[in-house]
Amino acid sequence: MSSLLLKQVIFKNQSVDIYIENNRIQKIDTTLSVHADECVDYKNQKTILPAFYNGHTHAAMTLLRGYADDLPLFEWLNNYIWPSEVKFTKKHIQVGTQLACLEMIHSGTVFFNDMYWHHPVVIKTATDMGLRVCSGPIFLDTLGSKSQKIQQIALKKFLQKYKTFSPTVIPSLGVHAIYSVYPKTLERLKKVLDDYDFFFHIHLSETQKEVEDCLKEHGCTPAEYLDKKGLLSPKTLIAHGIHLTKDELKLLADRGATVVHMPVSNMKLSNGFFDCTAANELGVNVILGTDGASSNNCLDMMGEMKTASLFAKHALQNVTAMPAQKVFHMATQAAAETFGLQAGVIEEGKLADAILVDLNNTRLVPGYNILSDMVYSADSSCIDSVICNGRFLMKNKQIKGEDAIIEKALRLKVGISE
Amino acid sequence: MSSLLLKQVIFKNQSVDIYIENNRIQKIDTTLSVHADECVDYKNQKTILPAFYNGHTHAAMTLLRGYADDLPLFEWLNNYIWPSEVKFTKKHIQVGTQLACLEMIHSGTVFFNDMYWHHPVVIKTATDMGLRVCSGPIFLDTLGSKSQKIQQIALKKFLQKYKTFSPTVIPSLGVHAIYSVYPKTLERLKKVLDDYDFFFHIHLSETQKEVEDCLKEHGCTPAEYLDKKGLLSPKTLIAHGIHLTKDELKLLADRGATVVHMPVSNMKLSNGFFDCTAANELGVNVILGTDGASSNNCLDMMGEMKTASLFAKHALQNVTAMPAQKVFHMATQAAAETFGLQAGVIEEGKLADAILVDLNNTRLVPGYNILSDMVYSADSSCIDSVICNGRFLMKNKQIKGEDAIIEKALRLKVGISE
Repeated sequence: MSSLLLKQVIFKNQSVDIYIENNRIQKIDTTLSVHADECVDYKNQKTILPAFYNGHTHAAMTLLRGYADDLPLFEWLNNYIWPSEVKFTKKHIQVGTQLACLEMIHSGTVFFNDMYWHHPVVIKTATDMGLRVCSGPIFLDTLGSKSQKIQQIALKKFLQKYKTFSPTVIPSLGVHAIYSVYPKTLERLKKVLDDYDFFFHIHLSETQKEVEDCLKEHGCTPAEYLDKKGLLSPKTLIAHGIHLTKDELKLLADRGATVVHMPVSNMKLSNGFFDCTAANELGVNVILGTDGASSNNCLDMMGEMKTASLFAKHALQNVTAMPAQKVFHMATQAAAETFGLQAGVIEEGKLADAILVDLNNTRLVPGYNILSDMVYSADSSCIDSVICNGRFLMKNKQIKGEDAIIEKALRLKVGISE
Repeated sequence: MSSLLLKQVIFKNQSVDIYIENNRIQKIDTTLSVHADECVDYKNQKTILPAFYNGHTHAAMTLLRGYADDLPLFEWLNNYIWPSEVKFTKKHIQVGTQLACLEMIHSGTVFFNDMYWHHPVVIKTATDMGLRVCSGPIFLDTLGSKSQKIQQIALKKFLQKYKTFSPTVIPSLGVHAIYSVYPKTLERLKKVLDDYDFFFHIHLSETQKEVEDCLKEHGCTPAEYLDKKGLLSPKTLIAHGIHLTKDELKLLADRGATVVHMPVSNMKLSNGFFDCTAANELGVNVILGTDGASSNNCLDMMGEMKTASLFAKHALQNVTAMPAQKVFHMATQAAAETFGLQAGVIEEGKLADAILVDLNNTRLVPGYNILSDMVYSADSSCIDSVICNGRFLMKNKQIKGEDAIIEKALRLKVGISE
């Protein structure tokens, strides 16, 4: 058992003490007299808020941050991203994921839903660095039969091993997209999902072309196609979903599936506007994600919240669209609950995932409304400490091992760009 | 005379020494052996880049950051912003401007073009804190005859005093908007501008309603109206300009006027998309600004660059629109040159305005393209030091007097919200 006592933190405009036992918030009160293994006194200079949950990313791609921007899609993929990814070894994936974790911790994120090769490396890296992760084998048939076999082997091993993972790991099966896997693969995965309670994670309806191709090939829309394969459930995580029709959104709502909205990526790749408000009104659960660093180029949920709000206000011509409170909820409690975590809110009994924010940081002064400030004005300089599952991932802006990771990433860079 | 030597800074991927004498970059070379009053060795851990120039803001309004967000325009103005501004004393304007300067320095900005009451307070504050500022008396007739008299007196004093300002101050006359000043005021200001070489700063074509009202009242579009009053020149700074027609843009290009593009504010207030690329193609000079903290809610030019690029990519459905290099140029050299400053680029002979950026900051690693990284991934945590006019405004993230300003701002907050 381990315990942690946070003294004099600002919580809902009041000074409180917070006692964390193991991985849960046990007690919040004006003053607590209790012994703890570790005690930190914040002297009413920091406020405690829920940490952020990143609904979709490709963490290892952080190693390609800024490598190729502002290029047409196919030039970008064919000449830069794919040739680099081919060179990625497990080492690249480890260091890329470490780099991503560093950035996420600095910007207050304690969880990421990942889609990338070599999930054991991703899972080990996230676990070692103390973050929660949703990850598992991924499928992309169009890379050829050799790759398909490797993917089958990865799945087999995953089914043997997933029970041994840390409780901070949430298992998933990932599919790149409906246009890059064969129907039989989807059918095989459906069978696995019938036996195992995994999340199912897929890019869907990201571009208009994908929708048109699906209509041509399968005679139905992308969400209908997934539903026919039995792959829409409360454990389905749809990345993007930009071009989902009203009928598809209703179908998702019926099935309890979640859309991960990524406004920065959607704008940067000019893929279109996902109307989160309309989706919510039809009953669809929507959370936020950053996408990978190749299409963002950072993994900062504060930037994502601001852009989600700005984009909706512009696109819907409504200044009241996607207010701060709503996008903050999407990035915290709504996301945590989506992944079955009793977290995302600072409350007795909840998992101890939290950030400590510096109330004296210029960007948060004068400080009328902390949620407005976090969404519209804060940046990573405002975040002093990050706690995940009852453990400090960052304390006073310091993350253990950061310098060594940066050094490794700088060294690996040379290899990719050559 | 004062001098400053920066040892081992990264400049265009090479390690160099930079010698600054008084306010200019005198020498850049691999190694410099020269005596300087102050010498800082960056040990090749920091890169030098031009600082940012904020094309339009209302600095003192930083004191209202987060006070009222996500509200319909008239509720926002009538119930929150205006009643608060009425309570603003010179003290509020001083502290609000100081707070704005702090945030701008932290995010690498050394200049702001301001529009606010009590310009002598703004000018003194910016000058004391070491920033360049463009400021001067402002005009808003619809506040009544008492206010008009005060504005006339302010103008008179300004004409007597502007020659005594620091060389870092650029004088301007500000007009709130064509719908809030009478034609005779514009005519009077035109006469002043004939005699004095000031900038002329105005909000124009921010909303569709403004355009319609102008057509009704004056029988011409807003830019045509200004031109009829003789107020379009290379010294004219048009804030927003969202709804300018092609003909108006051509007119601005002919007259050499500048548009200040503020994508965050334009999205947040859902005022529409300003097509910077189209304006540029017609020959219009466009720079970037943050607008005031009430409609952003921060004064961070990095956020503004990213949003400018994302917004254009989305609105024009073109992933190559507004690439990193272009928005970086708009925020630096293009802006400096607009205001007649030989700055915005690191080069011998130029004014010594610069930022030192931490190349080991997670968000800038691995570091393939520093401009992409500054636009799409950096935040204020990446900026280590800021130099303006040859003087450090921030060194190793420390700004002199910061704590005292924060304390004053926190105290003043109470007064406004009551």
